[in-house]
Amino acid sequence: MSVERILEGLARREPAALARAITLVENQRDGFERVLSHAHGLLGRSGARRIGITGPPGAGKSTLTEALIQRFRAQGLSVGVVAVDPTSPFTGGALLGDRIRMESVSLDPQVFIRSMATRGAHGGLATTTEEVADLLEAFGFQRIIVETVGVGQTELDIARTAETTVLVLVPESGDGIQTLKAGVMEIADLYVVNKSDRAGADKLRQEVEVMLGIRRGNAFRHVAPHHAQPTRSDRRTGGSQQSDSWEPPVLATVASTGAGVDELAAALDRHHAYLEASGQLGERRRRRLADRTRAVLERGVRRWLVEATRAEELLRQRLDEVADGLRSPYDVAAEILDQVKTGVVK
Amino acid sequence: MSVERILEGLARREPAALARAITLVENQRDGFERVLSHAHGLLGRSGARRIGITGPPGAGKSTLTEALIQRFRAQGLSVGVVAVDPTSPFTGGALLGDRIRMESVSLDPQVFIRSMATRGAHGGLATTTEEVADLLEAFGFQRIIVETVGVGQTELDIARTAETTVLVLVPESGDGIQTLKAGVMEIADLYVVNKSDRAGADKLRQEVEVMLGIRRGNAFRHVAPHHAQPTRSDRRTGGSQQSDSWEPPVLATVASTGAGVDELAAALDRHHAYLEASGQLGERRRRRLADRTRAVLERGVRRWLVEATRAEELLRQRLDEVADGLRSPYDVAAEILDQVKTGVVK
Repeated sequence: MSVERILEGLARREPAALARAITLVENQRDGFERVLSHAHGLLGRSGARRIGITGPPGAGKSTLTEALIQRFRAQGLSVGVVAVDPTSPFTGGALLGDRIRMESVSLDPQVFIRSMATRGAHGGLATTTEEVADLLEAFGFQRIIVETVGVGQTELDIARTAETTVLVLVPESGDGIQTLKAGVMEIADLYVVNKSDRAGADKLRQEVEVMLGIRRGNAFRHVAPHHAQPTRSDRRTGGSQQSDSWEPPVLATVASTGAGVDELAAALDRHHAYLEASGQLGERRRRRLADRTRAVLERGVRRWLVEATRAEELLRQRLDEVADGLRSPYDVAAEILDQVKTGVVK
Repeated sequence: MSVERILEGLARREPAALARAITLVENQRDGFERVLSHAHGLLGRSGARRIGITGPPGAGKSTLTEALIQRFRAQGLSVGVVAVDPTSPFTGGALLGDRIRMESVSLDPQVFIRSMATRGAHGGLATTTEEVADLLEAFGFQRIIVETVGVGQTELDIARTAETTVLVLVPESGDGIQTLKAGVMEIADLYVVNKSDRAGADKLRQEVEVMLGIRRGNAFRHVAPHHAQPTRSDRRTGGSQQSDSWEPPVLATVASTGAGVDELAAALDRHHAYLEASGQLGERRRRRLADRTRAVLERGVRRWLVEATRAEELLRQRLDEVADGLRSPYDVAAEILDQVKTGVVK
């Protein structure tokens, strides 16, 4: 399918064209930036919102995503999902099976689920994910869910390309939140204790609350013990937020039964309203666009170095000298950079 | 401390100069590549070996590292450690406390432990870690341990800058290895079930064995049930390896008592011998040097774009148009790249 054909297909809202466009972008094939540039002009029309969902493996993120999709569909909203598993370079994404698992929604034409196989493409995964989300939004989906497995740096970078980041935890994650690192816990706009009907859910919620209290310099804030009641988790769901600050709520869900999902959807709405009222939505968008332009430029320079200059050839020539210890990687890089700058390497 | 002073101090093996050199490299301050280029000429002299240790938080990696340090010291080997926590952009590294915790070795002048605070510097963290390891090796340390917390892409990239990668697991990590992703499990040269005196250790070892069997296309290989006996874990410790293939052993340790640490050290020796005998040591080294030169070049180009060209200025000028939807990040990046190529942006 040519780039022209893909653009025509996207204009006619053909799912096959969307699938091809995503593949094009994922593999950075010829013309992918033309498609993305076109998509860029279509963003922000349908009031689309982006939600990032992350958490350790086994936290039930896919089930929660499925429940959220059903919730959005009940409101008449169309939903696009990008599921990314950054640490499956060999198997091509452990999440691939989720397309089959999300049976209840997989045949709905207003739902589009795409698992991204990363195939060892480490650098720029967050950028590529955001670009795929752009395609989904340009296609007209009103809610975009970016789901990623894991709590490492790459996974957080991916989840944070969304406007609202949700961290999903489960009671049985080892020794509770102590096993999660500080950086991970500081990142989310919403916290969800899933499988909250299991033992330890209440304790985990309290631990997260205490951690959030410490973060706000309010370590001795009273944390009342409470029982995990997903359908009545309205005590601190961000209901009484000021527009100038956001206190991340800690919600309880049982994704498999749907308990707590309405409250999660309501909290997502509240966070969006907060972002709008505080002016942060615009700020975040602007910052993301600047970051994106920078990332696209860097990617372009990298490709230019490899494809259009003799940099790679020089590198290969010098490699023996580097391996034999005659020259250092720094000498060689400096030499090549110098030639790039002066236009000798053409 | 000037670069000259640092180089002199390194030549005199002054720990203070090493600490300054690492800070210089970590922050990419003026002259850092000169120091690294100098260090590069000193690599490979002392038969130094690099060991990467990774695993989920709470697996006891620091205790295991401490036990390994003691083991190496007993053999008269000096040890340098780089501890990296990629997901603590705000707190500056949760591992910082480990320097204090590793009390038994922290006063030994033949041991140098450095925690790296990443401060949000996402890109190139693996490269910087490898460069700090270079400094440690150039300084004369005979064993370099690269310890990183987490099992995401960034963490694996860091651990894999070493010659031998060790993945540390614990019985209580949630639902066992199902909660770890395929890519994570496929990466290590050695597997360690730490805290193997706890319930579930035996089951976890068997699960890892089965997983490794499946990976080798040998799913029905007999996995004999066995009890976790750290001091006699010699059944599959890689003892009878052919030089043309390596079957990753699954070891059991109790790092806090030192049980199984001798076996781990022996397995590390065997893996090194395998790498040498198979020619992979040279191959891996050559590939790492090529990757490094490429990374240094890319970093140089990025810095050149920011510091020596008008790229950032152009980007700022165009940002309003991008935010207003008049132009896409792709148009702007293409424009700037074009000017970089033709030397207009100088």
